[in-house]
Amino acid sequence: MKAGIIGATGYGGLELIRFLHQHPEVSSLQLFSSSEAGESFSAKYGHLQGIQDAPMEAIDEATIASLDVVFASTPAGVTSKLFPSLVDKGAKLIDLSGDFRLQNRAAYEQWYGKGAAPQDVLQKSVYGLTEWHADAVKDAALVANPGCYPTAVLLSLLPLIKHKLIDPSFLVIDAKSGVSGAGNKPSQGTHYSETNENFSIYKVNKHQHIPEIEQAISMFAGADVAITFNTHLVPMTRGILATSYAQVQPGVTQAQLVACLQETYAQHKFVRVVTDVNAIGTNRVKGSNYCDVFVQLDERTGRATIVGVIDNLVKGAAGQAIQNMNVQCGLDESTGLDVVPLFI
Amino acid sequence: MKAGIIGATGYGGLELIRFLHQHPEVSSLQLFSSSEAGESFSAKYGHLQGIQDAPMEAIDEATIASLDVVFASTPAGVTSKLFPSLVDKGAKLIDLSGDFRLQNRAAYEQWYGKGAAPQDVLQKSVYGLTEWHADAVKDAALVANPGCYPTAVLLSLLPLIKHKLIDPSFLVIDAKSGVSGAGNKPSQGTHYSETNENFSIYKVNKHQHIPEIEQAISMFAGADVAITFNTHLVPMTRGILATSYAQVQPGVTQAQLVACLQETYAQHKFVRVVTDVNAIGTNRVKGSNYCDVFVQLDERTGRATIVGVIDNLVKGAAGQAIQNMNVQCGLDESTGLDVVPLFI
Amino acid sequence: MKAGIIGATGYGGLELIRFLHQHPEVSSLQLFSSSEAGESFSAKYGHLQGIQDAPMEAIDEATIASLDVVFASTPAGVTSKLFPSLVDKGAKLIDLSGDFRLQNRAAYEQWYGKGAAPQDVLQKSVYGLTEWHADAVKDAALVANPGCYPTAVLLSLLPLIKHKLIDPSFLVIDAKSGVSGAGNKPSQGTHYSETNENFSIYKVNKHQHIPEIEQAISMFAGADVAITFNTHLVPMTRGILATSYAQVQPGVTQAQLVACLQETYAQHKFVRVVTDVNAIGTNRVKGSNYCDVFVQLDERTGRATIVGVIDNLVKGAAGQAIQNMNVQCGLDESTGLDVVPLFI
Amino acid sequence: MKAGIIGATGYGGLELIRFLHQHPEVSSLQLFSSSEAGESFSAKYGHLQGIQDAPMEAIDEATIASLDVVFASTPAGVTSKLFPSLVDKGAKLIDLSGDFRLQNRAAYEQWYGKGAAPQDVLQKSVYGLTEWHADAVKDAALVANPGCYPTAVLLSLLPLIKHKLIDPSFLVIDAKSGVSGAGNKPSQGTHYSETNENFSIYKVNKHQHIPEIEQAISMFAGADVAITFNTHLVPMTRGILATSYAQVQPGVTQAQLVACLQETYAQHKFVRVVTDVNAIGTNRVKGSNYCDVFVQLDERTGRATIVGVIDNLVKGAAGQAIQNMNVQCGLDESTGLDVVPLFI
Repeated sequence: MKAGIIGATGYGGLELIRFLHQHPEVSSLQLFSSSEAGESFSAKYGHLQGIQDAPMEAIDEATIASLDVVFASTPAGVTSKLFPSLVDKGAKLIDLSGDFRLQNRAAYEQWYGKGAAPQDVLQKSVYGLTEWHADAVKDAALVANPGCYPTAVLLSLLPLIKHKLIDPSFLVIDAKSGVSGAGNKPSQGTHYSETNENFSIYKVNKHQHIPEIEQAISMFAGADVAITFNTHLVPMTRGILATSYAQVQPGVTQAQLVACLQETYAQHKFVRVVTDVNAIGTNRVKGSNYCDVFVQLDERTGRATIVGVIDNLVKGAAGQAIQNMNVQCGLDESTGLDVVPLFI
Repeated sequence: MKAGIIGATGYGGLELIRFLHQHPEVSSLQLFSSSEAGESFSAKYGHLQGIQDAPMEAIDEATIASLDVVFASTPAGVTSKLFPSLVDKGAKLIDLSGDFRLQNRAAYEQWYGKGAAPQDVLQKSVYGLTEWHADAVKDAALVANPGCYPTAVLLSLLPLIKHKLIDPSFLVIDAKSGVSGAGNKPSQGTHYSETNENFSIYKVNKHQHIPEIEQAISMFAGADVAITFNTHLVPMTRGILATSYAQVQPGVTQAQLVACLQETYAQHKFVRVVTDVNAIGTNRVKGSNYCDVFVQLDERTGRATIVGVIDNLVKGAAGQAIQNMNVQCGLDESTGLDVVPLFI
Repeated sequence: MKAGIIGATGYGGLELIRFLHQHPEVSSLQLFSSSEAGESFSAKYGHLQGIQDAPMEAIDEATIASLDVVFASTPAGVTSKLFPSLVDKGAKLIDLSGDFRLQNRAAYEQWYGKGAAPQDVLQKSVYGLTEWHADAVKDAALVANPGCYPTAVLLSLLPLIKHKLIDPSFLVIDAKSGVSGAGNKPSQGTHYSETNENFSIYKVNKHQHIPEIEQAISMFAGADVAITFNTHLVPMTRGILATSYAQVQPGVTQAQLVACLQETYAQHKFVRVVTDVNAIGTNRVKGSNYCDVFVQLDERTGRATIVGVIDNLVKGAAGQAIQNMNVQCGLDESTGLDVVPLFI
Repeated sequence: MKAGIIGATGYGGLELIRFLHQHPEVSSLQLFSSSEAGESFSAKYGHLQGIQDAPMEAIDEATIASLDVVFASTPAGVTSKLFPSLVDKGAKLIDLSGDFRLQNRAAYEQWYGKGAAPQDVLQKSVYGLTEWHADAVKDAALVANPGCYPTAVLLSLLPLIKHKLIDPSFLVIDAKSGVSGAGNKPSQGTHYSETNENFSIYKVNKHQHIPEIEQAISMFAGADVAITFNTHLVPMTRGILATSYAQVQPGVTQAQLVACLQETYAQHKFVRVVTDVNAIGTNRVKGSNYCDVFVQLDERTGRATIVGVIDNLVKGAAGQAIQNMNVQCGLDESTGLDVVPLFI
């Protein structure tokens, strides 16, 4: 298979390169850039010396359409314009930006502050939370790869909501992310001396992943759900841990909660149900495509603590994108992704 | 004033030394240890070479009683036995452990798994959340210095509860702490290679600070309140940030929430009401006795996000203890504590 | 191939598991432990849930001999006793400890403070600095895998010494390592709160890697060389960067120094000669088997700065061990090791 | 005393504010900025809310001259133009930039790439390595505050050079710094995700502190000395540790080396001679004005390892500047600087 990446210079792009390089079914990889075409990739990213030295290419529709699969790891607002003319032209498309995740165009425009993708293309796109939508992904010409926070949140919450074990009406989701989620562009908020040894909260009640999470939860809850969702910056590079809180439905037990998660993911190797709280942490999934989930009922209050943990750059971005590619292309979903977490 | 510290070798003890050393009214400082008497303190802690070289002394009641003020920075279960015979014997007592924080002895024994302090001594002790109980602290022979998490949580929540702006019946508190809160004893859970680059959750629904927070909130709510409270470990050394979530009472506005905090703390320099979310973070209080508080109403859901930030070793331990000492001894509460946060 | 690891619970062992799991020629992996036999591996290391769940086995000579290849990742003093009876019994042996690295038994006993391995077994063992000794490794029954520091130092220095471009008589090597080099056992020196934000020097002039480096350099210098070598602890988990200083021989130019490195490693993909100083750093090799080398002549002083960078757990331990296994077993040296550095 | 800071928005400026705020003899503090006059300081740096809220002022010569003491914490090339007209106009001047450190104007222009300060003003300026030049500082109108690296290097090396215990002809200095030394301006090289978990070397043989160190060493060596000096970036915020290597003169013993350091600094409280290698590390001086020095002779090679450790922002910048101010103003040198290191 011939693969391409548009916008490879971001961290999502770097992780796509890392995994595609060792993917047994990918024989060639081309990198496209609007602003840096012609530059050697390893001159910019020295860790790829001897691995990815070739220069980036200009974005050319015909070239892109001739590939088997194309990933876009671009800022919001790019693929909504770039992808419509490429859909069904040959290459399978996988978009890592938020442009095709929200079916509600007004919601996109409100939360992203940009024009939404065309309605007809949106309707063709499939939300690629792989474990939940593999059947649709299989036939999709365009996959909207989920956001990093929504991946950790939805994989841990959806089973409990679908099976009506928790009450979705007062759902508090407190999420924490490593700094790589902010991308590769320097700013005061990611300047080492001011980020190191600092735990902070950001975008209070304003994160653009809120409507994405609500869209998926509402679908399974069977009603419109408004969540409380906040995000924090952790002084580390990789990893997301999302802690959610909800009242359980009357009579629900800890055993039922755990069983629900275990049954849901029995056939899905990348989601692991962890029952030892000491084994829940971002370093347990670091560098890998795993999502670890955990649930604990507090008998005193009747509320459950539900945790989802991922590497934001892998299961939360590049890894899940390749998992979707595998499904789109009829491969085993774990092809090329079967790596062991680094832990340390 | 002559001061003493029992259990000075812990991190709370180190911070007491740091601040007492520069306290203008403290003329001498003696360190007591049951297990390490006779050892030079700076041989153990090299950063104190030339500053605190004198050997530690054995714990002797007469010597301790002869001091003006004595801090205990000992594990749970020590001062409940050591302090009763010292109360009203001369030295003002300030306990940094949890032994005198809970008026309900059964709750202490349930959450701490140890025998509670005697009822009569408990009744004499005063809970030293300084900004809220300065009048009682002033006359106290024994101050129970608040826990680190409760300090961050209560300073941010109590004004809103007292003034009935938020509903205490579904209160979710998601707290995060740097690793110094785990103390100075090495363990797998604080081993650098497994702690670095790892964000984790611990003691789910089981933290011993839960009854301490509930005791204070219930008092101001006028009813027994059961909270949801969870704690996370952040890969950094100092700092606590607690994010709380509650439904606001009907009609309450963002302006009212902020005004409530500002009015409550107008005369309390160590609690700062921050209105710029970009200025909320643990490095803004690092090394100092400040507690920064922040509130944001989400109009979409009618829920408020309330944040409290402290340096767990200062406002959450040694700093607040000295603030209490100042009040007990009739000094300005900021004496010796007026240091600027390090930020970087 | 059937592989086994003795002492798999250390960090070297974890990395062996990580790479052997994805090695295309390794069909089974057994873990042996003297003290933890019978325990599930993933119960101890949660990141391996679903990956390496099987219990560890007791150390049994017959079982071990029946394997194709056996790695020992044990403390000093273990394999000197365990391996002699296993040599030439079937399984290829690769020792990650220092027990077979020094041909001079007296030197071993002086620097390690333990009894040396038997002389006859030492003579059979091959020092597995793969790029320099592949021919000998090919036929070896027992490979002494190099130490982490020596790997970074020797790969950067040996070409320049062999080709007499630098003067080995006043060689200063200033090395820095991440904390994972200290292993997985908690201690005050690796306690997070005292290790984080601390850069320190340790084992001044006493590191047991000194004789290992001197043995290799002396061989290529053609004379006994005494080096100055010091080690520092960097507040990060992975990575070694060694900075060496030497006078260049009269007339030697920067171009000659670079060319010497480039020619030496032209056919060795895992050693990369980097010419852009901004691309020299431990994150450029993180998680991978690369060693990056760099040299810069200071015209003012006639001295060269020579840098070697590795991931101490990969090229400095498990990666190089598998590289040696590949050579011993007639595979391409990069089989199963062809992973891209994480960078972030 | 009325104090002022020009260029207060850098990290050196922040530390000046931190210490001047608690200096007992400083009654007022004015901040000057060319580009940000009129802006509230705490709006930019939230950790100073309630502490330093006043707006910055434009740079006005008359206002500045009317103060008792003025610090400049500006980029290279600013004070060489700003200070000449202010010398002897009233305010004592302390320059934290490199503009007045090199008496050799050609060397300044070569290493800094900017025009040097006027010769006559240079001659009036005093190099403020306080422990070595207090007599000259006392009468100085203009103090050139030493660079961060030179402070750590010179305080550890000068005693041994002055007393001819080490040979200055082959001096290798390998220095390591936390990231705060790079200042507060975001760049790719200080972007958190690429700086964290990365140890790197930079400015190989090109650091502008080389001539500053050589100037001081040459003076005490009695001959022109060319050093080898390299700098590394450590993934931590504060701290410098410099490791120097030199041959000792024949017959010199470890005891003599230690005694030389101890005698030199017997009356200087801010330089501590540490004899326990386990107590040498940047966290032992963090946040304080101490410089810890250590020496170890390697009997095998006849070479000494000499270590100097400072907090780059305190003893390496703001702390030493205030120490100089104290001396210039006839105060005890430790006034306002007598703070205990944070350690954790």
